[in-house]
Amino acid sequence: MSPATFIDALQNELQTTQYGQRPPELYDPIRYIMSLGGKRLRPLMTLMAAYLFTDDWRKAVRPALAVEVFHNFTLMHDDIMDQAPLRRGQPTVHEKWNHNIAILSGDVMLVNAYELLLDVDADKLKRVLTRFNRTAAEVCEGQQFDMNFETRWDVTETEYIDMIRLKTSVLLGFALELGGLIAGADETTTDHLREGGINIGIGFQLKDDLLDVYGDPVKFGKQVGGDIIANKKTFLLIEALEKATGSIRDELIGWLNQTTFDKAEKVQAVTSIYDQLGIREVTETRINEYFARGFANFEQINAEPTRKSLLIEFARQLAERES
Amino acid sequence: MSPATFIDALQNELQTTQYGQRPPELYDPIRYIMSLGGKRLRPLMTLMAAYLFTDDWRKAVRPALAVEVFHNFTLMHDDIMDQAPLRRGQPTVHEKWNHNIAILSGDVMLVNAYELLLDVDADKLKRVLTRFNRTAAEVCEGQQFDMNFETRWDVTETEYIDMIRLKTSVLLGFALELGGLIAGADETTTDHLREGGINIGIGFQLKDDLLDVYGDPVKFGKQVGGDIIANKKTFLLIEALEKATGSIRDELIGWLNQTTFDKAEKVQAVTSIYDQLGIREVTETRINEYFARGFANFEQINAEPTRKSLLIEFARQLAERES
Repeated sequence: MSPATFIDALQNELQTTQYGQRPPELYDPIRYIMSLGGKRLRPLMTLMAAYLFTDDWRKAVRPALAVEVFHNFTLMHDDIMDQAPLRRGQPTVHEKWNHNIAILSGDVMLVNAYELLLDVDADKLKRVLTRFNRTAAEVCEGQQFDMNFETRWDVTETEYIDMIRLKTSVLLGFALELGGLIAGADETTTDHLREGGINIGIGFQLKDDLLDVYGDPVKFGKQVGGDIIANKKTFLLIEALEKATGSIRDELIGWLNQTTFDKAEKVQAVTSIYDQLGIREVTETRINEYFARGFANFEQINAEPTRKSLLIEFARQLAERES
Repeated sequence: MSPATFIDALQNELQTTQYGQRPPELYDPIRYIMSLGGKRLRPLMTLMAAYLFTDDWRKAVRPALAVEVFHNFTLMHDDIMDQAPLRRGQPTVHEKWNHNIAILSGDVMLVNAYELLLDVDADKLKRVLTRFNRTAAEVCEGQQFDMNFETRWDVTETEYIDMIRLKTSVLLGFALELGGLIAGADETTTDHLREGGINIGIGFQLKDDLLDVYGDPVKFGKQVGGDIIANKKTFLLIEALEKATGSIRDELIGWLNQTTFDKAEKVQAVTSIYDQLGIREVTETRINEYFARGFANFEQINAEPTRKSLLIEFARQLAERES
């Protein structure tokens, strides 16, 4: 068994799933955003978690897709809120159609996610949905905290980690937990899966923040320094604001308050401030900590070693990714 | 047993239900919109339908509230799309807070509706959710058709009725069906409940359109003629556009194209056109037809007569309402 088998099963399901037909303005945006690609990490995690405990992991494919549909629903609505023009290099739904269509298509996408999730054994449905509802609410909470942080300059590391835990990580936790639930794993095991997913999710998001500044421009695939240009409140900026004093602090605040600037100059200057404050090392330490916690959670899981190694290897690739 | 008993049970549940706490920007708007009142028709219908078949109708209270929460979620998002400043005489959520908060609070409200709906017996959960998902998608489809109609002058009566069936009526149908499902009614019976609810829902919306023009200003509670002022594509306007010819048609189109006008004068003129075309009578005939179909659906239901009369009486009040 290799990850390619899981990916093939997901692609096949992605190509055959029907989201709805009429009116086209409502359903075309769903097909559009789902066609933009992405790494499909979350449904892949569901399938790998199911495979830990059953050969019949294919019964997790439609519920796994529910997680991907939910994730893309949050992207569609977040893009409106963030006024983002592009998603994966293509126009966002509210740009290609309009705001109202992006709101309403997103709504029906969330309903679609619930419909796909119904495809679990009846005796597991209530538990799956209880956990999904909690997760979905937390993802919304994380997005609201993220928006609240935009106008604050005193966000603490603890607050930031809690925000990304909600906005990003709990869904990775749920993706793994769902696979375990479908495969009939006991509650202790699904707890380890969820916690492992959350920890790896936090490490994953912190790595995202790090790569935006310290990524290899060739391998990264996106513009390095985009978060610096946009004053995005990342882990690195929050750490820098917490640590900087004196003239370095003045310089950092100065760059944050500039409304017109040379982009390359700002990226270079802020990166240099991060260098002086040792922000890269702090961030790498924190990333390694969270991934280590995730691996420790997975260690607790009692499953066939070659199957477990698939999941561990997947997490290791997330930790070592350069794009 | 009287409707007041059901209303008391609902009010009690409304006051104790928790929607969430942090961040307050996410959950305050939910408490706000739920506190604005309204007739609570939909959850009341769920309880009355459950009571047809069981004394234990109280187990339907939380699922009934799910229908009301879902309805208010659609209002929150529709108000953004329609740029409505007021809802039940109070500022809409996007006006009182902002657009982003109205989008995101609405999202988590939909999740809340699903959570309340989980409170049905495990063996009924899948059927309840399958029906709810279908209904929720249809409500979104109806809203999209309604928005599409705004820029069209050739909407037919059939298209209009289909739009209001989706946007308004299927949720009334589901509200009744849900009560039947929870109380263990068989599928034939829950089909009659749903169809009856849909037919009465169509009659209800057509009555809404009628009252806006021909309501008694004292009893109506809202400004008579609001739809005419806003060129809202109601059943009356669509009928008039289908029926009007010659100079009457020119006059009607003329009023629709006026950008500055005296409101009272426009209301009087368009009402006079409706009068000349016999639109009131056509609308009343159609309303009576749909309510009659609804009563015929209810006739098919096998339940204790005094219990059934509660539901029939409720529908009769909807048919005869003047506000």
